Amino acid sequence: MYNITVIPGDGIGKEVMKATLSVLDALNLNLNYTFAEAGDECLEINGEALPEKTIQLCKKSDACLFGAAGETAADVIVKLRHEMELFANLRPVKSYPGTNALFNDIDFMIVRENTEGLYKQDEEKYTENGAEAKRIITRQAESRICDYAFKYAVKHGKSKVTGVHKANVLKKTDGLFKKIFYETAENYKNKGIDAEDFYVDATAMYLITQPKTFEVLVTTNLFGDILSDEGAGLVGGLGLIPSANIGENGALFEPVHGSAPDIAGKGIANPLAMMLSAVMMLNYLGETEEAENLDKSILKVLKESKNLTPDLNGNSTTDEMAEAVKIELLKFN
Amino acid sequence: MYNITVIPGDGIGKEVMKATLSVLDALNLNLNYTFAEAGDECLEINGEALPEKTIQLCKKSDACLFGAAGETAADVIVKLRHEMELFANLRPVKSYPGTNALFNDIDFMIVRENTEGLYKQDEEKYTENGAEAKRIITRQAESRICDYAFKYAVKHGKSKVTGVHKANVLKKTDGLFKKIFYETAENYKNKGIDAEDFYVDATAMYLITQPKTFEVLVTTNLFGDILSDEGAGLVGGLGLIPSANIGENGALFEPVHGSAPDIAGKGIANPLAMMLSAVMMLNYLGETEEAENLDKSILKVLKESKNLTPDLNGNSTTDEMAEAVKIELLKFN
Ligand SMILES: CC(C)[C@H](C(=O)O)[C@@H](O)C(=O)O
Ligand SMILES: CC(C)[C@H](C(=O)O)[C@@H](O)C(=O)O
Repeated sequence: MYNITVIPGDGIGKEVMKATLSVLDALNLNLNYTFAEAGDECLEINGEALPEKTIQLCKKSDACLFGAAGETAADVIVKLRHEMELFANLRPVKSYPGTNALFNDIDFMIVRENTEGLYKQDEEKYTENGAEAKRIITRQAESRICDYAFKYAVKHGKSKVTGVHKANVLKKTDGLFKKIFYETAENYKNKGIDAEDFYVDATAMYLITQPKTFEVLVTTNLFGDILSDEGAGLVGGLGLIPSANIGENGALFEPVHGSAPDIAGKGIANPLAMMLSAVMMLNYLGETEEAENLDKSILKVLKESKNLTPDLNGNSTTDEMAEAVKIELLKFN
Repeated sequence: MYNITVIPGDGIGKEVMKATLSVLDALNLNLNYTFAEAGDECLEINGEALPEKTIQLCKKSDACLFGAAGETAADVIVKLRHEMELFANLRPVKSYPGTNALFNDIDFMIVRENTEGLYKQDEEKYTENGAEAKRIITRQAESRICDYAFKYAVKHGKSKVTGVHKANVLKKTDGLFKKIFYETAENYKNKGIDAEDFYVDATAMYLITQPKTFEVLVTTNLFGDILSDEGAGLVGGLGLIPSANIGENGALFEPVHGSAPDIAGKGIANPLAMMLSAVMMLNYLGETEEAENLDKSILKVLKESKNLTPDLNGNSTTDEMAEAVKIELLKFN
């Protein structure tokens, strides 16, 4: 049995979570859900966007599923990442059939450092006329994330890791990142993993002009944030980008999209980013067979293109799409 | 007569500069060039990448043309921007015929703050194990750039300016930017200019999923750097992205591309980003008619697609392409 903390959150977060849980119910697994609150509605009801109770539940559980939060997203998710020490943020960018992906065959993983950089939120507002934020880079956090990226490459049969930075301008902080990246690479040479590095601006261009050359990218927190949304654009939007936040003692899985107030309540949100996040969770829990079945079921529904939500140019509802995935999934039993 | 400081720099910088000057010679203008050194070769010869003499020449001249620098690019160009107080970096992203642009009809301007943010290079390396960089945001610099962007919109008949930031995480620094952006917007409401703002990550996605909705973007230094290279990717690469660095008392025009050591010396570099930078210079100098003629000549060569460099899938040399532009240009006389 796995104890899963479930945080539906706000807006479409609730809708895609409901759809995803209904699909997970069709698996041969004993998932024990505990629901927890966080987000705008939680703030309104409880006076805080992320209650201590939610943090404690998350810390205790085997894994967490997180839907989306509204205006309070940054306060909720950045704090949860810190509190749970979820140091690695994995964001697969993959083109699927039946979508608006610009190119077929895009398939890379962005490994984003998740604890420091500008996300330390170490800011000083000296006057109304100016402020400064500290971009904090430590050997400890950056070598941990670089190592994670190379390990990921080995485990998934990849042949190259790309380090992304701006060391020409940020000579000390990103100079250190680059140094650590290549130090780490040394340890993986004999495992057949190549290393290359690009400036973040060049990378933002190459993601469009040569996306198929990327396998695994590793970068600091904010660059990972920007590049993963760009990656979402490449494969047709955020509807299909899941993510995993991984720590030593916990993990949280969430779609990269937000609460989407513009379509919330209409029942038309694409639930696949949430479901693909659940696939990542199952893999994390070691339930690789169930993960693969769910993944294949999602792929089948995309390929058949009969039950797609409006963002994928279909006219199905969230629930209809979930139902279609469930039907595929049940065929594996 | 205009006094122009010309810095060819390194690699293809020299090649595209030569090609561009040969084209400028065909204009009905009295341009007085003074050549100056900067870059890797300059470092090797003179012991410094950006000699004081070059800085002084740049400051004295009516405008500067800059090719590209190699490894020393950051030291040269960031320093020049600071020394000359070139606070606005204009980066037009436009799709041209005959190119690898992903979509037709892309046409937006990125107005990048050019003096502060992480480019202050205010970094502290406390130990081998960590470093921090300060991201400095001042009301003075950000209101200047926001104002520039709205003025640009008015002048060029645009209807909207998009402010780009990460105020959900960087509440103080980018909170201030966002505040200033909307304060500035107030002053341009009666001139028919709308204002909207997005997070930088969302913008990185929207540039791909809805590029035609953008007209003018304004953002802080590093975000502008990243988004403009992404923009280059959208329109087929850096071969066609010029830029203008504008200050109160000077201006410098440069292609966004670098010295491209991989193709340097082969005579096949695309000179159009440099020529389009010259178009921006002519506009800056008030020579709008000559600017338009040059612009139209470039467009003609692209449309005819008979004299394109390899990056545009042609097999012409830099000089052949320049010659083709020159022939078009002479037709205006
Ligand atoms: C909501 C926001 C703070 C968050 C981030 O910047 O990390 C989001 O954009 C993401 O990518 O998960
Ligand atoms: C060379 C580098 C310092 C520079 C920058 O980051 O500004 C370049 O990328 C650019 O965009 O002009």
